[in-house]
Amino acid sequence: MQDGPLQHLIKMLSGLPGLGNRSARRIALNMLNNREQTMLPLAKLLERTAEEIKTCGICANLDMVDPCSICQDIKRQKSQICVVSQVSDLWAIERTSAYKGQYHVLGGLLSALDGVGPDQLNSANLFRRAKDLDISEIILALSATVDGQSTAHYLADHIGREGLEVTHLAHGVPVGGELDYLDDGTITTALRSRKTGS
Amino acid sequence: MQDGPLQHLIKMLSGLPGLGNRSARRIALNMLNNREQTMLPLAKLLERTAEEIKTCGICANLDMVDPCSICQDIKRQKSQICVVSQVSDLWAIERTSAYKGQYHVLGGLLSALDGVGPDQLNSANLFRRAKDLDISEIILALSATVDGQSTAHYLADHIGREGLEVTHLAHGVPVGGELDYLDDGTITTALRSRKTGS
Repeated sequence: MQDGPLQHLIKMLSGLPGLGNRSARRIALNMLNNREQTMLPLAKLLERTAEEIKTCGICANLDMVDPCSICQDIKRQKSQICVVSQVSDLWAIERTSAYKGQYHVLGGLLSALDGVGPDQLNSANLFRRAKDLDISEIILALSATVDGQSTAHYLADHIGREGLEVTHLAHGVPVGGELDYLDDGTITTALRSRKTGS
Repeated sequence: MQDGPLQHLIKMLSGLPGLGNRSARRIALNMLNNREQTMLPLAKLLERTAEEIKTCGICANLDMVDPCSICQDIKRQKSQICVVSQVSDLWAIERTSAYKGQYHVLGGLLSALDGVGPDQLNSANLFRRAKDLDISEIILALSATVDGQSTAHYLADHIGREGLEVTHLAHGVPVGGELDYLDDGTITTALRSRKTGS
């Protein structure tokens, strides 16, 4: 097997998140068997996406317009900002249709292990947005991991001003979750945050 | 979220083998964060690969040249043909460096469930190649699955002529395999095919 474009392609695919050598080989071979239906359209689509998708100057969401369609939507509440780590988290919240405010995408989480400091996050913009007196609540929708929680602490420390509420997602038993399979930390938190009524 | 190129990209990626919606989203976002280093080079590489990689007219291997570099290699034995289902199987055998003969890629396996009959396989070419009196052995290196074994039976039935040996890969305990974790079929086969000496 010569060192040609196919080997480069497999190497490049195997560097994508979640793909290893085996899955990259499988994908490359599958695409070679469907050049007209998959491989060439995918190449075109990658170029088009790289050109057309912009990062929103306000919230750092990805969209075809800047400001993004969420920031532009006059029907959405302007008083709430939901802070997420990644665009995929924003999508996850949008899928629920349970939130109708603004967003702010950090682009990561503080991480001592990965060497991510406050400067690498899109946090300065958030602090600037939080100064707007129309904003009454900042929801920190960050993962319940060590990195997520330390980022939340950092943001809450720097964001506060009078009249601005900083909230977190509730911790507890996931809907449909069986107690027997949950870790002790979750059960302890759910017990401490117990509520009256059903 | 609008219905733009990003959504199309995610949909197309999620159709690749081994990828679902979640992993496709993750890959698309990762690429958008590395447009110059990953996304655009990958688009170019896909186009280049689709253009430059050819299917070998003799063995159906994928290579930049036709006939492929294995078929062209004068150092390799001409008397053995190793029949595999996919190019990835050819690569797996090449990685071992244990085989120095020719190959023949079927492009699939007979499968009643998936509706793959003899006509969809690259078998007519194999039967033609097997008529060459210089060929002394055909090795059927097919998976030890129902489809693999029925394909092997079909090929062995149609390939035979005097002086041509048709062989199979040995079945038995995988190297490094623990007996306790092996299925009954493998243990039975390994026991029946037991050998003397160490």
